[in-house]
Amino acid sequence: MDAPFDIVRASHIEYVVTDIDEARRYYSATLGMVETASEGSRVYLRGIEDRTHHSLVLTEGRRPGLSHMAFRLRSELDMKKAERFLEAEGIRHSLAEGEEKGIGPSLRFQDPSGFPVELFYRTDAVEWELQKYHSHHGGRIMRIDHFNVLVPDVAGTVKWYVEKLHFALSEFTEDDDGSMQAAWLRRKQSSHDIAVMRGHGPRFHHAGFIVSDRDSILDCADILSSSGYFRSIERGPGRHGITNAFFLYLRDSDRHRIELYTGDYMAADPDLQPVRWSVHDPRRQTFWGAPTPESWTNEASDVIPFDFPAHHKD
Amino acid sequence: MDAPFDIVRASHIEYVVTDIDEARRYYSATLGMVETASEGSRVYLRGIEDRTHHSLVLTEGRRPGLSHMAFRLRSELDMKKAERFLEAEGIRHSLAEGEEKGIGPSLRFQDPSGFPVELFYRTDAVEWELQKYHSHHGGRIMRIDHFNVLVPDVAGTVKWYVEKLHFALSEFTEDDDGSMQAAWLRRKQSSHDIAVMRGHGPRFHHAGFIVSDRDSILDCADILSSSGYFRSIERGPGRHGITNAFFLYLRDSDRHRIELYTGDYMAADPDLQPVRWSVHDPRRQTFWGAPTPESWTNEASDVIPFDFPAHHKD
Amino acid sequence: MDAPFDIVRASHIEYVVTDIDEARRYYSATLGMVETASEGSRVYLRGIEDRTHHSLVLTEGRRPGLSHMAFRLRSELDMKKAERFLEAEGIRHSLAEGEEKGIGPSLRFQDPSGFPVELFYRTDAVEWELQKYHSHHGGRIMRIDHFNVLVPDVAGTVKWYVEKLHFALSEFTEDDDGSMQAAWLRRKQSSHDIAVMRGHGPRFHHAGFIVSDRDSILDCADILSSSGYFRSIERGPGRHGITNAFFLYLRDSDRHRIELYTGDYMAADPDLQPVRWSVHDPRRQTFWGAPTPESWTNEASDVIPFDFPAHHKD
Amino acid sequence: MDAPFDIVRASHIEYVVTDIDEARRYYSATLGMVETASEGSRVYLRGIEDRTHHSLVLTEGRRPGLSHMAFRLRSELDMKKAERFLEAEGIRHSLAEGEEKGIGPSLRFQDPSGFPVELFYRTDAVEWELQKYHSHHGGRIMRIDHFNVLVPDVAGTVKWYVEKLHFALSEFTEDDDGSMQAAWLRRKQSSHDIAVMRGHGPRFHHAGFIVSDRDSILDCADILSSSGYFRSIERGPGRHGITNAFFLYLRDSDRHRIELYTGDYMAADPDLQPVRWSVHDPRRQTFWGAPTPESWTNEASDVIPFDFPAHHKD
Repeated sequence: MDAPFDIVRASHIEYVVTDIDEARRYYSATLGMVETASEGSRVYLRGIEDRTHHSLVLTEGRRPGLSHMAFRLRSELDMKKAERFLEAEGIRHSLAEGEEKGIGPSLRFQDPSGFPVELFYRTDAVEWELQKYHSHHGGRIMRIDHFNVLVPDVAGTVKWYVEKLHFALSEFTEDDDGSMQAAWLRRKQSSHDIAVMRGHGPRFHHAGFIVSDRDSILDCADILSSSGYFRSIERGPGRHGITNAFFLYLRDSDRHRIELYTGDYMAADPDLQPVRWSVHDPRRQTFWGAPTPESWTNEASDVIPFDFPAHHKD
Repeated sequence: MDAPFDIVRASHIEYVVTDIDEARRYYSATLGMVETASEGSRVYLRGIEDRTHHSLVLTEGRRPGLSHMAFRLRSELDMKKAERFLEAEGIRHSLAEGEEKGIGPSLRFQDPSGFPVELFYRTDAVEWELQKYHSHHGGRIMRIDHFNVLVPDVAGTVKWYVEKLHFALSEFTEDDDGSMQAAWLRRKQSSHDIAVMRGHGPRFHHAGFIVSDRDSILDCADILSSSGYFRSIERGPGRHGITNAFFLYLRDSDRHRIELYTGDYMAADPDLQPVRWSVHDPRRQTFWGAPTPESWTNEASDVIPFDFPAHHKD
Repeated sequence: MDAPFDIVRASHIEYVVTDIDEARRYYSATLGMVETASEGSRVYLRGIEDRTHHSLVLTEGRRPGLSHMAFRLRSELDMKKAERFLEAEGIRHSLAEGEEKGIGPSLRFQDPSGFPVELFYRTDAVEWELQKYHSHHGGRIMRIDHFNVLVPDVAGTVKWYVEKLHFALSEFTEDDDGSMQAAWLRRKQSSHDIAVMRGHGPRFHHAGFIVSDRDSILDCADILSSSGYFRSIERGPGRHGITNAFFLYLRDSDRHRIELYTGDYMAADPDLQPVRWSVHDPRRQTFWGAPTPESWTNEASDVIPFDFPAHHKD
Repeated sequence: MDAPFDIVRASHIEYVVTDIDEARRYYSATLGMVETASEGSRVYLRGIEDRTHHSLVLTEGRRPGLSHMAFRLRSELDMKKAERFLEAEGIRHSLAEGEEKGIGPSLRFQDPSGFPVELFYRTDAVEWELQKYHSHHGGRIMRIDHFNVLVPDVAGTVKWYVEKLHFALSEFTEDDDGSMQAAWLRRKQSSHDIAVMRGHGPRFHHAGFIVSDRDSILDCADILSSSGYFRSIERGPGRHGITNAFFLYLRDSDRHRIELYTGDYMAADPDLQPVRWSVHDPRRQTFWGAPTPESWTNEASDVIPFDFPAHHKD
């Protein structure tokens, strides 16, 4: 059975931050993301490898939060199919155009777990920074990779993304009673586009950004520490058993979290079996054993629900 | 327009070698590929990350050559569609089953440029070596990535793969007169599954295998030199401008070539524009300028055409 | 003023272990040290880069402990001078010959802080493994670098090593009241040959072994975890502010600790100023902020005093 | 027998360049050396790890050349001893003070092979950039390591440095007739402070600068290529068999050469045996086999003899 519409991949997020200058200093000057555009108190950033207009939008506001996470669709036709799907499912949504620079029309809705999701298919062309090595700096962030969210009912959220949106299950953790505690789901050909972990929710745990290699992550930790961002390093560097990726978790001044991430696997084949981890295996989280800090387990960004106009299309 | 059948990716090759023991020593003991199975004078190898039965088959024979290159299809239905496609195109082919361990039925044909191509969709499950770090050694080869072939008429071969099989063009080189000199074509979400270069052909230039990072390539060069395989290092290490990958080219004792390869880009988005390189830009081949050895430019493996039985299905 | 005798560098230690087969499996098969010789329940190991007979001696015994730490002297004349020095200082000592394979005569004494110290100047020649890359494995340990010891009175121990043995002070930590809490002292041209930290003592905290680069440390952590030594990883990987080195701390099955260590600085110049760190600067220990585990702070190996014969030379 | 005076290490060079702005752009903005001071058309640079005032002096002049190479002495007393040594040897010399910023008095002379050598013992303190990671960029050059010179009579030059100045022989190449073709000589505890190669001379082949690791060299090659300095990459990256170091050779716009260099060994022990290489072993130069470009073999910087005043002290 075909998917109701074709999601290509996790494509960008928008974080509301309380100090846009500080956020810009952190993500652009320090971590090395590239500024594509800005307007008022909103900045559009992309990674060195991104060929889309942005993978991170920072918008100044009074309360920090995730204002949306966006998946890119394959084509205009998929937008139409997505709209029909949302109508058929009875999910409130709106069609926005021009609210966000650099992309075409976008469909916005709250998913059944409460996350503000945006779908779009068109993006403005931007210069490719990949081989402008002399301009790379800081964390040398290459591209966005995945979203990680917290929900009370992991199995329920996973079921929706797998059965309705045709995500594939790459890995999962399970308690002794067979209950799913966390899951890594993919559309593109890597371990995941979205991970779902059990916790108070809906909250947004982090966005993962790819870097080239482990040394880029180690260099970034050095740079953060030496440039006054010692406290922004929350966890790592280390290797995850799950996904096999090498990681570093960072918190910005509004406590939004991102992960620098490298070294997971290609997942192109259609018959890959999901990898099961017991929640009692400590190597699932940290292959080398360093304890997970409490803040990582307990803290996450609030999500800001879309505020649909009274007479919007739903 | 949809593809006539869905090719997932470049999946394996078979090299005919003149000394199976030596070939095994090179690819398995020295370069670190994992032996899945063997029968008589044939050995099936895979990379650390491969979850398919094999990505390299070595078969002893009197004359070295490429006996086939295989693409994996998405499903059984795609096999049927492929068969219909070959019939419609008037391309001789045969349906094999059981000739190659570890995979289901396969369709074999010569493509219009003369390369022996195998299509299959099913593979036996194998253990995943990815996190058995203590057993990784030598080149720590992760998985197969691409094929690279030589043909006299690049534009013609590219046209067939793009128009008929719906490969996407990632990068290409062009002479001043606008003639295409080489092209990198993808099905999976990386820079390429097959590259086509201008030369006396049909000949098979190399198969590319992914390693985790640049250090794995440097370590492999050290290991080859210290273990008596100094002469097997043909070119590199270096960076290609095209694909942005870090590379090392090796020759086995039959002069078959493989590339160790790391660091190209994700190519998931549907609207990526092909990257054009002038043949006059020396950075296209070697971003740092080291000259390409003549052997790399001139030498390649012969291809061994399928020998279809008189009464085979065609 | 010249030193009373010329110490070249920290050269080896001897650990008493309770299971020599397990210790051998850990240090040699897993961590990749090279076995030079063995006799009965004693094994002599060296690193890939060591050109001395051994940098680690493992001896089976009932109670684990450090049986000595050895400094190499420049010449036979320095041995004589050292003997005169010990006599002049009224320090009990003995001259041993033939008790330890691979080295010439050795002087043994307890230093004023209670550590069993061995001095020697001659070593048997061994093969250099440095460029036998195909035999390197596991932690790819290159050579011994330093000792780290715990004493209640840091300033006192430092004073003796600096004033009597002419070690140079590279770095130190200081409390608000100006009391020295830890110190890094060198003879050879790197940050230190011996570090002295405040704690219950005399106890031996760890021996530091050099590896080539950060990737060797990351690879080693992977190998330990995948080969059943997950629990032997105690702390790291991370960067020390002090010495600037990248580190990983390991515990063997007797809880002896070693550090894999890379990337400190050259200290050849005679006028280098000691680097001062406040004990309130968290970056001194871990430049990136990961907390130090309690075991690292509190646990260390007992030292086994030399048992001088009744009629020995003193 | 003690040395007549104590040379600590190779400490700096001065290159005469024809365009000081371009040279500054290359060594400082692009390669990441730190500018300590400048005066008129002279710039003083140091590496990230250097705690001396400078390791490279660039001075604008009409004809490019090496104006001197400097060794640091241990103490003021060693300066006096050096002066007496030069007098005893009948070598013309002068005592300079204030001609070069940041160092104390210096002794200048032509060595018997014709190289302009400077000796000094005192340097101004500078800030240590080692842990200012956010300011590191480009080649992230850490410190100077060695000089490499060309002479017609290798054995003669080696004899003088070894017998008169007590350099130790680390490695050498030899022809079938037992004649020495090149030699690596050390004072500090690494493979060499000066290398002597056979060729038309006296000419200065290159100065070697240490970087932290292989990735720094690969990153530097990328940065040079992308920032318009593609042509400045002459040879590498690769590994030398001799010294075991990983290298990259660069040429500035006056064709002066420097080597980025990492990973040689500690040479502290007094009894290290020199490593002999046959000139017929291709791995001595390039462990992985890439051919050495002709320019590397044939081209070098002219040396500019000191122009001693008529009535100077000699």
